[in-house]
Amino acid sequence: MLLMRKIILLSGALIFICSCKNNGNNTGHDDMVYGSPEAVVTSQPNNEKAKGPIGFGAGVPPLMQGDTIDVKFDATHKVFHVGSEIAYMGWTFGDSIPGPIIHVKVGQTIRFAMTDRSNDTMHNQSMHMNMKPMQHSIDFHAAMVNPADKYRTIQPGETIHFTWTANYPGVFMYHCATPSVLVHLSNGMFGMVIVEPRDGYPTTVDTEFALVQNEYYLKQNGDAYVLDTAAARTRQPSYVTFNGKIGRYILHPLKVKAGKRIRVYFLNVGPNNISNFHVIGTILDKVWLDGNPKNELVGMQSVLVGPASGAIMEFIL
Amino acid sequence: MLLMRKIILLSGALIFICSCKNNGNNTGHDDMVYGSPEAVVTSQPNNEKAKGPIGFGAGVPPLMQGDTIDVKFDATHKVFHVGSEIAYMGWTFGDSIPGPIIHVKVGQTIRFAMTDRSNDTMHNQSMHMNMKPMQHSIDFHAAMVNPADKYRTIQPGETIHFTWTANYPGVFMYHCATPSVLVHLSNGMFGMVIVEPRDGYPTTVDTEFALVQNEYYLKQNGDAYVLDTAAARTRQPSYVTFNGKIGRYILHPLKVKAGKRIRVYFLNVGPNNISNFHVIGTILDKVWLDGNPKNELVGMQSVLVGPASGAIMEFIL
Amino acid sequence: MLLMRKIILLSGALIFICSCKNNGNNTGHDDMVYGSPEAVVTSQPNNEKAKGPIGFGAGVPPLMQGDTIDVKFDATHKVFHVGSEIAYMGWTFGDSIPGPIIHVKVGQTIRFAMTDRSNDTMHNQSMHMNMKPMQHSIDFHAAMVNPADKYRTIQPGETIHFTWTANYPGVFMYHCATPSVLVHLSNGMFGMVIVEPRDGYPTTVDTEFALVQNEYYLKQNGDAYVLDTAAARTRQPSYVTFNGKIGRYILHPLKVKAGKRIRVYFLNVGPNNISNFHVIGTILDKVWLDGNPKNELVGMQSVLVGPASGAIMEFIL
Repeated sequence: MLLMRKIILLSGALIFICSCKNNGNNTGHDDMVYGSPEAVVTSQPNNEKAKGPIGFGAGVPPLMQGDTIDVKFDATHKVFHVGSEIAYMGWTFGDSIPGPIIHVKVGQTIRFAMTDRSNDTMHNQSMHMNMKPMQHSIDFHAAMVNPADKYRTIQPGETIHFTWTANYPGVFMYHCATPSVLVHLSNGMFGMVIVEPRDGYPTTVDTEFALVQNEYYLKQNGDAYVLDTAAARTRQPSYVTFNGKIGRYILHPLKVKAGKRIRVYFLNVGPNNISNFHVIGTILDKVWLDGNPKNELVGMQSVLVGPASGAIMEFIL
Repeated sequence: MLLMRKIILLSGALIFICSCKNNGNNTGHDDMVYGSPEAVVTSQPNNEKAKGPIGFGAGVPPLMQGDTIDVKFDATHKVFHVGSEIAYMGWTFGDSIPGPIIHVKVGQTIRFAMTDRSNDTMHNQSMHMNMKPMQHSIDFHAAMVNPADKYRTIQPGETIHFTWTANYPGVFMYHCATPSVLVHLSNGMFGMVIVEPRDGYPTTVDTEFALVQNEYYLKQNGDAYVLDTAAARTRQPSYVTFNGKIGRYILHPLKVKAGKRIRVYFLNVGPNNISNFHVIGTILDKVWLDGNPKNELVGMQSVLVGPASGAIMEFIL
Repeated sequence: MLLMRKIILLSGALIFICSCKNNGNNTGHDDMVYGSPEAVVTSQPNNEKAKGPIGFGAGVPPLMQGDTIDVKFDATHKVFHVGSEIAYMGWTFGDSIPGPIIHVKVGQTIRFAMTDRSNDTMHNQSMHMNMKPMQHSIDFHAAMVNPADKYRTIQPGETIHFTWTANYPGVFMYHCATPSVLVHLSNGMFGMVIVEPRDGYPTTVDTEFALVQNEYYLKQNGDAYVLDTAAARTRQPSYVTFNGKIGRYILHPLKVKAGKRIRVYFLNVGPNNISNFHVIGTILDKVWLDGNPKNELVGMQSVLVGPASGAIMEFIL
């Protein structure tokens, strides 16, 4: 199945019907793992707290040791402050826009669990249509699994469990894949997975930052804001932000020492626009498209990153 | 001469005036062939059937042996069914949108012939303005020839003959180059040329597909549809399709076995929008920009393909 | 600090606060030069003529010998003829749109001086708001310096002096960085820096051209035209031109001999649209993204170049 950049135009989408067995066997070359055991959906919420090598904001969460890593967070409906004056009735992973950054290594298997809590996160919120209980799901671009199984939609109150193995290093998106994908994604349901190469990066840096760029399409609704679906379809964003908040790094700049080498893990969520990433006052020493060191460009003044694409950039300030 | 992405804004177009001799000599290094003998335009239709290593749909037509390969199809005006309810008065190559896929090898010379049959394809069609006899032409992005000669406009009823040699491997566009290019292209006059490397691809795959993506800009006209030129100029497509039909691979999915390696030959015709190609449930193991194995990216979650650009992607489902 | 492609949406801009010392020491690896002595702003105009390895139009100005190269031109307000009927009240570098092409080599240090002459270039111009004295500045994408110092805004009549060293080969943009950047850039304040590799290019060509592509957003004002800021914000260009003039190379084509190898230094200024560069009748033998020979693509039918990005293309006609 193909997700077009112009998600609004799904009429062109291609479906590959795969006679997948989901047996979790390594069917491929080298040590790649294709597929995984069938997902399990239970009717009970999983009440464990969020866990795993996860974090929020520009910091990169530390790796965890082990072949299998537990990651757990939930799909929720929350009022999220896009700006000091902008309370947004959003849909989230892990109560945050963007959702948690997940940091793993090639070869690690992620044992993932997520409850759809859209039915129990409305205690401090109006019963606006945007906040009603709702089906959700999760699609990891870093995974190579049967989407009809793992990325299936679950009901409010249900929990989905599945595993996947990180085969390729990179900076990957995850997002809710429940139709309309444009609506679920634009409401806030997206996040970043960083998959480090098995033997680490070929370079050493002094500082790292994670930046998730997304477009907000907002319209006012009483005291709060909700998704303006029409604006999303016509691609007229209200705001483009890093890590979910307007002017976040203007109000609270990231601090770096001169002469230090910086690595930025960058994800352009879109959902519509291509980003041309540029750092004022320097040149990007290395750019790894989709975050894979094999896809290296050097000495770039800027780099095009499409929606649903990532990159790693290294530079000295 | 430069064709801008924004064909509607040709004011910026650059013309290189080339003192070309068209003598067909190999004037360059290695074994590349630059230019070819002058095109011949005759006032008679060529009544041979369409021929050559050509095909329609997602299948890749087999290569033909030989140094020189005859390819023949015509420019026609046809009612083409974009969807079951959408009869479109289009302009076509070979009676199809997209036109025939042509599959050749580096080093092969294509002896091409095309009749402009816009004057004799109206038997079952209204005399709508869109279906009146019309000048046409053909421009092969895979060729290195004098465009003022080979890509010249011919009259209804005339036939053009010219040869060109495939110098570079890749996935290339062809299209009608008669002004307004935007109008001729958007009406349906485009197709894909696959040029295989002289010694084949460096990888082996189990299955191959050819996918041509284009934007339709349609407005209703009685029982049928015609090009909405204004929508094309303002870049508001009605549909984005693969291989010319709405939801083609939703209704009739391409079937693949799990664990098989797939190669997709992809062409984004545009004419306006950039595509961010992504396959749900997997990672693109290899991406060759414009279809040339030297332009390799690996482990990509998605890839930007501009209008009038191609790519080969390989992946395992 | 990050300059987003969508400059109109600066709410998302990221600020890196750098504890820069501006001591001009080489703090990095190899022979790169990071930073430079603090800029000097004087209240007097510098009345020297424009100087340095600079040129206008499609010709590439010759390199100058020496470790340190003086470059001087001014920020001015001028009536610039975008077309024979279109007198545009623009803001310029060096009285031209685009500004002067600067041609240097990796390792050369540029000793730059610029006076803001917006207060003395109105002798033959109406006192339209667009022509009133105005703060300006200059930001070189080819430089690695503290932007808060070097790219600072100066007042009409003031002169700024600073140095920077070319560390990376490429085709880089420079532009006025005074807010609103979109307005200053769209008014005409941009140009190209070509930085040649220290030991020259790995290929030899017969002919070179420099092409700067930009979008004009114009509205009529009496007999002349001024910037249509609203059109710039909604990305509806009036014209897209090469080297600042409508149809420049249609009226006066660049001439090339058949079989000759051509190198084009290309800069897409934008400020909004991505260019898909294609030369009718040939295939791009080599493409170096952002003009760095290490970022090589081969056999391309077209290449995506984002706003504020450059490329070198070589091909045979």
